[in-house]
Amino acid sequence: MKAVKIGLCGLGTVGAGTFNLLSSNRNTINAHANRDIQITVVGARRDNPACALGDTAVERDVLAVVDSDVDIIVELIGGTTIAKELVLKAIAMGKHVVTANKALIAEHGNEIFAAASAQGVQVVYEAAVAGGIPIIKSLREGLAANRIEWLAGIINGTGNFILTEMRDKGRVFTDVLAEAQALGYAEADPTFDVEGIDAAHKLVILAALAFGMPLRFDAVYTEGIGNIEPADVTYAEELGYRIKHLGIARRREHGVELRVHPTLVPENRLIAQVDGVMNAVMVQGDAVGPTLYYGAGAGAGPTASAVVADIIDVARHIDATGDQRVAHLGVAESAIIDLPVLDISEVETACYLRASVLDKPGVLSSIAQIMSSHGISIEAIIQKQPEAGQDHVPLIMLTNLSSELNLRTAISEIEQLDTVAGALVSIRVEAL
Amino acid sequence: MKAVKIGLCGLGTVGAGTFNLLSSNRNTINAHANRDIQITVVGARRDNPACALGDTAVERDVLAVVDSDVDIIVELIGGTTIAKELVLKAIAMGKHVVTANKALIAEHGNEIFAAASAQGVQVVYEAAVAGGIPIIKSLREGLAANRIEWLAGIINGTGNFILTEMRDKGRVFTDVLAEAQALGYAEADPTFDVEGIDAAHKLVILAALAFGMPLRFDAVYTEGIGNIEPADVTYAEELGYRIKHLGIARRREHGVELRVHPTLVPENRLIAQVDGVMNAVMVQGDAVGPTLYYGAGAGAGPTASAVVADIIDVARHIDATGDQRVAHLGVAESAIIDLPVLDISEVETACYLRASVLDKPGVLSSIAQIMSSHGISIEAIIQKQPEAGQDHVPLIMLTNLSSELNLRTAISEIEQLDTVAGALVSIRVEAL
Repeated sequence: MKAVKIGLCGLGTVGAGTFNLLSSNRNTINAHANRDIQITVVGARRDNPACALGDTAVERDVLAVVDSDVDIIVELIGGTTIAKELVLKAIAMGKHVVTANKALIAEHGNEIFAAASAQGVQVVYEAAVAGGIPIIKSLREGLAANRIEWLAGIINGTGNFILTEMRDKGRVFTDVLAEAQALGYAEADPTFDVEGIDAAHKLVILAALAFGMPLRFDAVYTEGIGNIEPADVTYAEELGYRIKHLGIARRREHGVELRVHPTLVPENRLIAQVDGVMNAVMVQGDAVGPTLYYGAGAGAGPTASAVVADIIDVARHIDATGDQRVAHLGVAESAIIDLPVLDISEVETACYLRASVLDKPGVLSSIAQIMSSHGISIEAIIQKQPEAGQDHVPLIMLTNLSSELNLRTAISEIEQLDTVAGALVSIRVEAL
Repeated sequence: MKAVKIGLCGLGTVGAGTFNLLSSNRNTINAHANRDIQITVVGARRDNPACALGDTAVERDVLAVVDSDVDIIVELIGGTTIAKELVLKAIAMGKHVVTANKALIAEHGNEIFAAASAQGVQVVYEAAVAGGIPIIKSLREGLAANRIEWLAGIINGTGNFILTEMRDKGRVFTDVLAEAQALGYAEADPTFDVEGIDAAHKLVILAALAFGMPLRFDAVYTEGIGNIEPADVTYAEELGYRIKHLGIARRREHGVELRVHPTLVPENRLIAQVDGVMNAVMVQGDAVGPTLYYGAGAGAGPTASAVVADIIDVARHIDATGDQRVAHLGVAESAIIDLPVLDISEVETACYLRASVLDKPGVLSSIAQIMSSHGISIEAIIQKQPEAGQDHVPLIMLTNLSSELNLRTAISEIEQLDTVAGALVSIRVEAL
């Protein structure tokens, strides 16, 4: 059995998980690779008590790992500075790269893949999206015969945990966020998770694979979940919907929609039932129809599962020629098309709206008239009784499909009515 | 771009779907394969109006297709007689094989894979299980780093359609079966679907991949859905469960459980929400935890999606050496272990029981005592009021985990009580 030598860079949660998995499941892994996979060097500034390195060589300077006698560099240090330097150095020295780094691929993938192709090496990144779910393999290979029409994913576990708790227990956002931080689900700086940046990184990768287009992190529209109120969770439920923070990529006639935002999803859709820190991605192909992939999106074990699957793939092809390998974005580089990404104003969705309106006749009709004048019809309405001492009541509406531009214009006109207090709450709706 | 020549055998629903997909999505498919994939010969006893063959050569004798100048034989004729002859002939002549034939692989896969390996060719079969869902790729490659603990799948769409209709509309089995036949979901002879034979074929393939063991169709325990009554669907619902026809493979200390039967699944599990003709497979890996794969399990488009994905994989490796390819069952042949398959009496499950009992004191206690004497405890009970003029009432119980042997013994003792009328209904329960 041939040996394949790994340089493992980074010994945090995922690095230690990968080291341990390669050890605990060595027989299964080698049997799948038909090779003996050996970690010969670890690069880490410090040891991690979660894994016993034994007599494995350690470099305190991760960049030095690339200089050692290894076939594959596994980059698990994160970030986009040293990680990028490490990956480009590995490529320049003709080593293959396995990475779990979504930010690196989303923001620098085009440059990295070009360098790798020029050097005849592979850069693989299954663990960068949705942890242990083999969604990248499914898109690149399993669904390769399809023209992908759209995909939608719960691709940030922290955000989904927060929304699930808000719904199940009627809690407020800030309260659940604090708990998520205490549980270690959310970072001390939760911006990446709750503002949707982490989901945007992953969405950009999924869209590039689905549509055969370059990575366009610059072009994703991103909206976080910080403004979701328990009232909206409840009203959504009354209307038969759940609120999920989705990354959505959709092929349209004149370009591609790339957007991350809170979304009302019909409660009978499987993805609406995905709770807690779990991830799921729906993919709609023209031949296969709707498919869904579900699993843990983070954590040592699930992420290591994806990293090691990538190592096995690269190991199996270590002596292969370039055209026997799956291309970085699934399709051959010559087939990648720089599809335009639509501005959010051009996006078409249905919408949930909540207004605080005076409880008197004629208010609904003036709102409906504004909607109608922009070609928007109202599919469902809930109007609540006023509470004691209140002269305003919540008015909740579901609109039909309309362009974001028309919707924004209508909302701004409605907000100018004397009978409407404050700003409207608006959350997009997807039938999926 | 190199050309790869396909001989397409069989021009039924899936054959025509594959021909049409290779034509309609040719650019996407060739871009993924980095090869020009051409159907050069079609083998079919008659044309199919669903596809226009144009100037593609046609052989009326499918076996003659193997003699023509093709690289890959795509077997879509079904059955296990001519299909087996065709596949073995293709292998003997050094051609790769793509097949959607679950019966062929489940019943003759061991022989076929051995012949293929000896000849240095590949036999691939993604479309044989769960239609368009890339579950075989996920098991063979995506989860390759895991020791798989168990899997459970809704892998027969007809059966799931029938159970969904029974639940949603309170209909009886025979009535829904007749509708499924009229809709074309079920064959005129529905035995394969409703008796679980089709699911058993697929389960055997999934288990071989999950556990690295030979295909053991001879050893699957199979129970159909023909005895499920609307009352049980309703009581299951009251207890928080749905009834699904599952194929289940579980690794136990002394062997493997392989079984297809109706199963109560907690309604909050994602797989419990999979309705209609859709398929889904849950896979539990030691590193990745629970994962789920969902999509259409049959039909021209979904099945062709899987067939063409396989063609792309084989085409990409057409010049590769054997050890660059994924092994037929995921692990190298030398690593396949002939794990013992446990007899159904050794299986451990929880159980739903329904008895018709006399409505008088002491009945429950005598039943509970029998259960207890076999180490079975009762987790939940529903006892209904007697209907007017009836002296018997339904008694529904959920047991904890026990061996099938103990359970069968207890059931037979309970059936001998004077206070119990007729046979007990028993349906296994899985927490998943």
